[in-house]
Amino acid sequence: MRVVLAVGTTRTAEIEGLSAAGADPEAMVHTPSADAEIVSYGEPVRSPVVPVSPTGCPTPAVVTRAVRDLVGFDVTVVDAGLAEPTGAPTVTVGARSGDDIREADPVPTAPGAFAAAREFGQALPDDEVYLGESIPGGTTTALGVQAALGERSATADGASVSSSLPENPVERKEAVVDEGLAASGLAEGDLSGDPREAIRRMGDPVLAVLSGLALGCLESGTAVTLAGGTQLATVAAVLRHAGEERPLDLATTQYVADDPSVDLGALADAFDLSVTATDPAFDAGDHPAFDGYVAGEAKEGVAMGGALALARTAGVSDADVRERVLERYRSLPLDA
Amino acid sequence: MRVVLAVGTTRTAEIEGLSAAGADPEAMVHTPSADAEIVSYGEPVRSPVVPVSPTGCPTPAVVTRAVRDLVGFDVTVVDAGLAEPTGAPTVTVGARSGDDIREADPVPTAPGAFAAAREFGQALPDDEVYLGESIPGGTTTALGVQAALGERSATADGASVSSSLPENPVERKEAVVDEGLAASGLAEGDLSGDPREAIRRMGDPVLAVLSGLALGCLESGTAVTLAGGTQLATVAAVLRHAGEERPLDLATTQYVADDPSVDLGALADAFDLSVTATDPAFDAGDHPAFDGYVAGEAKEGVAMGGALALARTAGVSDADVRERVLERYRSLPLDA
Repeated sequence: MRVVLAVGTTRTAEIEGLSAAGADPEAMVHTPSADAEIVSYGEPVRSPVVPVSPTGCPTPAVVTRAVRDLVGFDVTVVDAGLAEPTGAPTVTVGARSGDDIREADPVPTAPGAFAAAREFGQALPDDEVYLGESIPGGTTTALGVQAALGERSATADGASVSSSLPENPVERKEAVVDEGLAASGLAEGDLSGDPREAIRRMGDPVLAVLSGLALGCLESGTAVTLAGGTQLATVAAVLRHAGEERPLDLATTQYVADDPSVDLGALADAFDLSVTATDPAFDAGDHPAFDGYVAGEAKEGVAMGGALALARTAGVSDADVRERVLERYRSLPLDA
Repeated sequence: MRVVLAVGTTRTAEIEGLSAAGADPEAMVHTPSADAEIVSYGEPVRSPVVPVSPTGCPTPAVVTRAVRDLVGFDVTVVDAGLAEPTGAPTVTVGARSGDDIREADPVPTAPGAFAAAREFGQALPDDEVYLGESIPGGTTTALGVQAALGERSATADGASVSSSLPENPVERKEAVVDEGLAASGLAEGDLSGDPREAIRRMGDPVLAVLSGLALGCLESGTAVTLAGGTQLATVAAVLRHAGEERPLDLATTQYVADDPSVDLGALADAFDLSVTATDPAFDAGDHPAFDGYVAGEAKEGVAMGGALALARTAGVSDADVRERVLERYRSLPLDA
């Protein structure tokens, strides 16, 4: 089993109030680099930070790494536009950091990165891969792609993307996306059927890489599980708009499924997704490291939902997952 | 357990008759990129070749990967100056391809790559690492560094580096090194005690990265095993000239130990190395894939000797190693 993580950045994350994927805006740009290190080595190696939310909720990378300790899957990290150095080994596909989607052409490397990731996905020898992400601000850019594809209204009510914040700043995201559409000279749905261009104009480099990886894997007979929340559901939207009709699985956390601002079932219907949502029962953990998750922070990321599903499949108990998460958490160089 | 592989290139390999690390000179430049993919995925992913010697002897990467299947160690690949793309995930330390050592300044990135690799080695959280290499022409550049350090005569008789060819082209290597010293305005031993400069003027980027990694690991309490032959012994020479006095282990193959052109015991004495040489008994394999090794080709590389030592420690039999090597070999896209 291989988990492939696409890690990158978008300057859209610099817009205040969109993301909790970092203690503060200065730390946030290091989050994907640090997440890759935590999954690869168990702790940061080059990154100056351990990613935590402003309230101290630890990155889902800790959960994914803990499950990796217990289950033993391979991890391959793809550089999908990192802005800061990482000590994690990364595969290169030509992606660069994305610009703010309120610019006209924020992800010019999207088509090239999509193509290179697709070839890489085709060449991977695995029977099965799980695809995950780390990119602060990624739900806003996912909403942007949905808007360009005409899928923003895929859910009857509420938002079609979740949030790392307990209170999804839906209106702010919608406003950013509307500004982005205007900056790109696009009306809602103008790029229906042209998902590469939708990612280039309204998305981020991680969506380009994940979509290319997923398509390449499917084309070569590798089963794909989209391991994440609404960003990975947006990858499914991209694949459907690219004409891909094969079955797609989404493995996410119960925190995303329970997000009152998102109708995950409607997204699953819209993009023909089979959804598994795993509840790690962090509320039984009785430790501050779990409190943020229980309060609805973070929710998902770095393939956490996929890792939890793999733990379940391997017969690892929730208690053992929690214990290992705490061991990993305690070994991190966190400030007191 | 983590095996860290430094993979890179030197244009010294373009000199005819120095190396068997490729079917022909055009293929050779892809060897480190392909080796990294074989250890990472089991087969080439982006590389257009499976590395074989001119007679068809498969790369030692197949052996290391086979043992990895059986023993399950982590692998981290460091880009130590690749000249062709790889689909393997790699860590960046600022190394670029080395030039021919008959140029005055063939490895200007050596000091920077050494420093970055040292920091990376310091930060690795492991208790123990094995360090290996893939660089065609690497024994000639290792001899160059030995010469610059005044260690070329470390062995009483014969050469102080081995060869991927059955007949070590010792005289040719010595002539290249002598030309290199002249081009750099150096006499034998001029850079004794200045090993970074010795690597820059007479070595290759892989030696820079391995030496930095080894030093950084030792400094932070990570045990280091040099997993290779005379190139890794040269890393020990570099460390001794850098003032490092801690014990050092070398894990290599019996093929290097049996090389009549090398006195491995004398090298071990000269650089205070504790040597383990493992014989995988490929002569009992009765398959063409093993014939080259039995005839003295390849001998070592891509941490093969270290991997064999790990198999031995884990109680895996030689027969099981051979069987797995053949399974991996048969799955490779080799021409008929």
